[in-house]
Amino acid sequence: MQRGFGSDNHSGICPEVIEAICQVNSNHALAYGDDEYCHQAEELFKQHFGAQARPYFAFNGTGANILCIDAMCRSQHAVICADTAHINVDECGAPQRLVGCRLLTIATPDGKLTPELIQQHLHGFGFQHHSQPRAISITQPTELGTLYTVNEIKALASLAHQYHMYLHVDGARLANAAVATGLSFREMTTDCGVDCLSFGGTKNGLMMGECCLLLNPELDIDMLYRRKQLAQLYSKMRYVAAQFIAYLKDDLWKRNATHSNQMAQRLLDAVRQIPTVRIMYPVQANSVFVQMPSQVWRELQQSCFFYEWDEAQNVVRWMCSFDTTEDDIAHFLATLQTIIDKYSKQTN
Amino acid sequence: MQRGFGSDNHSGICPEVIEAICQVNSNHALAYGDDEYCHQAEELFKQHFGAQARPYFAFNGTGANILCIDAMCRSQHAVICADTAHINVDECGAPQRLVGCRLLTIATPDGKLTPELIQQHLHGFGFQHHSQPRAISITQPTELGTLYTVNEIKALASLAHQYHMYLHVDGARLANAAVATGLSFREMTTDCGVDCLSFGGTKNGLMMGECCLLLNPELDIDMLYRRKQLAQLYSKMRYVAAQFIAYLKDDLWKRNATHSNQMAQRLLDAVRQIPTVRIMYPVQANSVFVQMPSQVWRELQQSCFFYEWDEAQNVVRWMCSFDTTEDDIAHFLATLQTIIDKYSKQTN
Amino acid sequence: MQRGFGSDNHSGICPEVIEAICQVNSNHALAYGDDEYCHQAEELFKQHFGAQARPYFAFNGTGANILCIDAMCRSQHAVICADTAHINVDECGAPQRLVGCRLLTIATPDGKLTPELIQQHLHGFGFQHHSQPRAISITQPTELGTLYTVNEIKALASLAHQYHMYLHVDGARLANAAVATGLSFREMTTDCGVDCLSFGGTKNGLMMGECCLLLNPELDIDMLYRRKQLAQLYSKMRYVAAQFIAYLKDDLWKRNATHSNQMAQRLLDAVRQIPTVRIMYPVQANSVFVQMPSQVWRELQQSCFFYEWDEAQNVVRWMCSFDTTEDDIAHFLATLQTIIDKYSKQTN
Amino acid sequence: MQRGFGSDNHSGICPEVIEAICQVNSNHALAYGDDEYCHQAEELFKQHFGAQARPYFAFNGTGANILCIDAMCRSQHAVICADTAHINVDECGAPQRLVGCRLLTIATPDGKLTPELIQQHLHGFGFQHHSQPRAISITQPTELGTLYTVNEIKALASLAHQYHMYLHVDGARLANAAVATGLSFREMTTDCGVDCLSFGGTKNGLMMGECCLLLNPELDIDMLYRRKQLAQLYSKMRYVAAQFIAYLKDDLWKRNATHSNQMAQRLLDAVRQIPTVRIMYPVQANSVFVQMPSQVWRELQQSCFFYEWDEAQNVVRWMCSFDTTEDDIAHFLATLQTIIDKYSKQTN
Repeated sequence: MQRGFGSDNHSGICPEVIEAICQVNSNHALAYGDDEYCHQAEELFKQHFGAQARPYFAFNGTGANILCIDAMCRSQHAVICADTAHINVDECGAPQRLVGCRLLTIATPDGKLTPELIQQHLHGFGFQHHSQPRAISITQPTELGTLYTVNEIKALASLAHQYHMYLHVDGARLANAAVATGLSFREMTTDCGVDCLSFGGTKNGLMMGECCLLLNPELDIDMLYRRKQLAQLYSKMRYVAAQFIAYLKDDLWKRNATHSNQMAQRLLDAVRQIPTVRIMYPVQANSVFVQMPSQVWRELQQSCFFYEWDEAQNVVRWMCSFDTTEDDIAHFLATLQTIIDKYSKQTN
Repeated sequence: MQRGFGSDNHSGICPEVIEAICQVNSNHALAYGDDEYCHQAEELFKQHFGAQARPYFAFNGTGANILCIDAMCRSQHAVICADTAHINVDECGAPQRLVGCRLLTIATPDGKLTPELIQQHLHGFGFQHHSQPRAISITQPTELGTLYTVNEIKALASLAHQYHMYLHVDGARLANAAVATGLSFREMTTDCGVDCLSFGGTKNGLMMGECCLLLNPELDIDMLYRRKQLAQLYSKMRYVAAQFIAYLKDDLWKRNATHSNQMAQRLLDAVRQIPTVRIMYPVQANSVFVQMPSQVWRELQQSCFFYEWDEAQNVVRWMCSFDTTEDDIAHFLATLQTIIDKYSKQTN
Repeated sequence: MQRGFGSDNHSGICPEVIEAICQVNSNHALAYGDDEYCHQAEELFKQHFGAQARPYFAFNGTGANILCIDAMCRSQHAVICADTAHINVDECGAPQRLVGCRLLTIATPDGKLTPELIQQHLHGFGFQHHSQPRAISITQPTELGTLYTVNEIKALASLAHQYHMYLHVDGARLANAAVATGLSFREMTTDCGVDCLSFGGTKNGLMMGECCLLLNPELDIDMLYRRKQLAQLYSKMRYVAAQFIAYLKDDLWKRNATHSNQMAQRLLDAVRQIPTVRIMYPVQANSVFVQMPSQVWRELQQSCFFYEWDEAQNVVRWMCSFDTTEDDIAHFLATLQTIIDKYSKQTN
Repeated sequence: MQRGFGSDNHSGICPEVIEAICQVNSNHALAYGDDEYCHQAEELFKQHFGAQARPYFAFNGTGANILCIDAMCRSQHAVICADTAHINVDECGAPQRLVGCRLLTIATPDGKLTPELIQQHLHGFGFQHHSQPRAISITQPTELGTLYTVNEIKALASLAHQYHMYLHVDGARLANAAVATGLSFREMTTDCGVDCLSFGGTKNGLMMGECCLLLNPELDIDMLYRRKQLAQLYSKMRYVAAQFIAYLKDDLWKRNATHSNQMAQRLLDAVRQIPTVRIMYPVQANSVFVQMPSQVWRELQQSCFFYEWDEAQNVVRWMCSFDTTEDDIAHFLATLQTIIDKYSKQTN
């Protein structure tokens, strides 16, 4: 497959991560998390998120999300989320199957929940017929590439806690949010009152490795058993620990995310000049959502892979990653311009 | 951690597998299984198991087992298995939580089910109060290191099919069974009438990678959705495909398993000479179960890690792996002899 | 508790039903459905819905709905329903917990789904990340007391079948819909292409008794086991069968529903004259939704029980039942008028 | 169906219960448990079991059992029970489907668990791969008609609590155990340290009505929601409350159970004289398990219904109920004798 803008998990493993895997590959290590690399990785998570952080490694984003939901909710509970949320749309109903709870979804203009949007659903507490709201789940950056500010996150945490609920952040691309805002991981999560977090690495250069990170210690009950049950317990866990060590120790997460965000900005700057293309949402992380004539994006897709986001509305998503090059972008833009010119001539 | 006999997943990644991961690490690949490496790996599975084989990669053994059970059963069904089976004892109730079915467990002398043992449980068909027997699940080699012969597997498949049931093989260490018997994968599964298989790689040198392998095409319904739901869908799937390609293409599986089986035999040959140590089961694959005085195994465990299997009975398990060396064994045996001598002197 | 307009399950058992229970109360009967009364009741269901109808009695409405969903869906599926649907709002997440599937909810002006509203959600078929739309569920009459016409139901069935989906009707008050439209049960379900049906009796004079009624024979797989598992199998089933016999044999369902609908119309006619009270939805069955000043309905509620429907909007629900009397209504209206007059004077 | 010894739920509703249902059948009552009859029934449960008892009515025995298990366990837990337990054998896997936990079953000679039998399974606490033992579940009287003494129950409660586990009693026929031992309900449950109880009424003369009775207040968390989800919430709950009021207020439970136990003793006394018939277990409640030649029980079954218990072993179960008459028994015994004589002559 040629290079493209399909997804940040179409890219490979960044060299530092491969190197880290190789470095721990000698002799034996206790399986299932009780080895020195896992302990070291846990320590790094505590450095980045605060001493009370409890990381539970998972295989993939669905795994990390499910572990977080499972820590917060039983089946009688509801999780409030945007209707665009990954847990609602892109996990084939895993929360319903695996936790059995209800997702209470809210339409949003830009993928972001607000206290006002949520407030209208905060009723029925104590009424036995209704699923009990128990958690608010947001994605940072959102599935539409937009960002919550620290104050917005704090307001949501405060609302959640006022109703004895929890705030969860799906942070599959949290690194991109951190570099975009210039904040540390801790400043945008723990210090805002976030209770738990799905922390992603795979989309930012890891081979595989996500983490259910509990920030509120009262959630940390029986998680080892529940991770095992949910088929998220990795035997040779040192190899995911090694990746997270490489990721978190020397700012690899920051370098990779900075690059992919910059590439998205470069793409944005260029397409802003093209009248045929409409920018759909503020470009705050590493994705660009644009609208253009059907024939244009369909022909562009032939030569460079990316996903249509809303086929009916002719909206497509371009995703940059840690290995997107300036050449990739230049080539992509040139192809786009050629196609636009062709159809523009036909129209004239 | 020093080297030991704790588990074949305490060992690392074999060099050919690391190499294979590095080789596919360039440019982009479609995520979620639709890349050239996945297609190539699928082709290799068909070569080894027959053209009708349908592989669904999973992250770990529990994942592969659950996918198989989910393919065979709905919640009203029962899976018949040995009470020592990994799905019964070592998955923290994952089958019950994730599929909701009943495990109907049978005590066995050596970890092996027989038609006679099963037959007594084959009743209640059509009776609405009873879970309906739907699958027989065996482990090859068993959790006790024993092997089913081809005829034994055929007899179980035949019994299963007679009752409109399926036969599942938990093959986390199937390679060890294959080299021990001199049979191909196909001869001991597809050709015996096995309906589906959990095929393991992690315990025999892979970094991670297991496979739910459907051999009976009627089981292949909606598996993509169900794998996704069960959090077993790997985004950068080329990296597990690459490992399986390396594993299956040039007999890497055979070399690794042959070695670990040979090391177990060497261990066996030596301890057979030691009167203090009792061999518990025939050593047919890469594990050795032995009984010895409590003080002996506890002191041995101090210097070299391994698991107690049945603490009350003083039975311990020694597991060899692809990277166990003759030195490892020599050193281990010397330590054992020293400890035995010490206690023997004390007794005299 | 004084009589009121709280719910049609606040009323008791109608005399014919008590009588029927007493009549079968002699000697022994096989438990769990295999008695002569159950067979007779099943026969009556076939007379009313067509020879292919397969009734599975359940204890309550949630039970019947869950059995229907369980017959149509596995966990990877989605059920499309109005966001006001009982299965979405009033079953505390039972579908998610018990079946594990996703509910895909749609906002509606009047509780009624249309092909247009649904069409926009009919995508993602074959995409492994998305719950697969498998069923459309409507309520007849809706939770807002509105009715689907035969043509509307046919259009929904047709849409469902075009996409290899099923149409389910939550008919907890189906009798009220039937008498309102003058149609037989069969004309508004089987003949429209409805695949399965939750048929209610409790709200129309039964002591307890609901029915999961499969109209499409391809849904009738392993239902006995699944009903048992879902704790909906009644041992002394003759006593629910007897109730349904009484209900279906001599038009008891029709007499009771006709009465409750008429009482709702009488209520409607009266309140239409009161300018302070706004009718919210067409009154087509036995419920009346009205809006009035907060102080008025709150004071009225003190003397006669009914539920607020939307507290923020000052909308309340008045539900008539088979035993609502003209006196009940006259008394209720008089009280209402007195309250309105009081506040009207205060304002003047 | 002619009268027989099939099951105590083949019998009907006892007259006092019908009468009680009729008496509450006037005017309206709040649905879902908040009516005066429910409050009165709850008060009676507290009188019989102690002030801390918290009753949650359910529709059937499976419902009550599941509510109890759900109160004690999450999916990572194991319930230890006899392999003959109703929850293991006769609920089609409801605990696995609805709670997702593991049943850890133990073979027993007479249906009774002992601390010795259980002790060997009390390991693996804290080991993430193993389901964590969380509850012991016993049936009183057992499925084999045998009884636990108060001391035996206390010993099991003590063992459970020592391991931070709970003790559950499946008391579908608890009344029969109480009258057999001459103990009050409280003496054989609360005072023994039982944590929760499935209390049955249906098998002893109720139309329908079981109860999940929590005796340990720490189990009483969110039960209303979970009962609703599990489809066990009855709308017109006054009608089950009325039955329990009749059952508990004036010793109806005692009269009915005394009678059925006496009938079982009468049956026992008679068959004890018949050499062809072997008594299998002590007859301590209302069931008699006997072994006899295949041709005898099969012919007897033709004229009077009862269940084979173990077809292979020619063991059948005769169950007496509150309405079994001396004539029923005399007739049954005469038929049995005739059949025995016939075959005896053939043999001679």
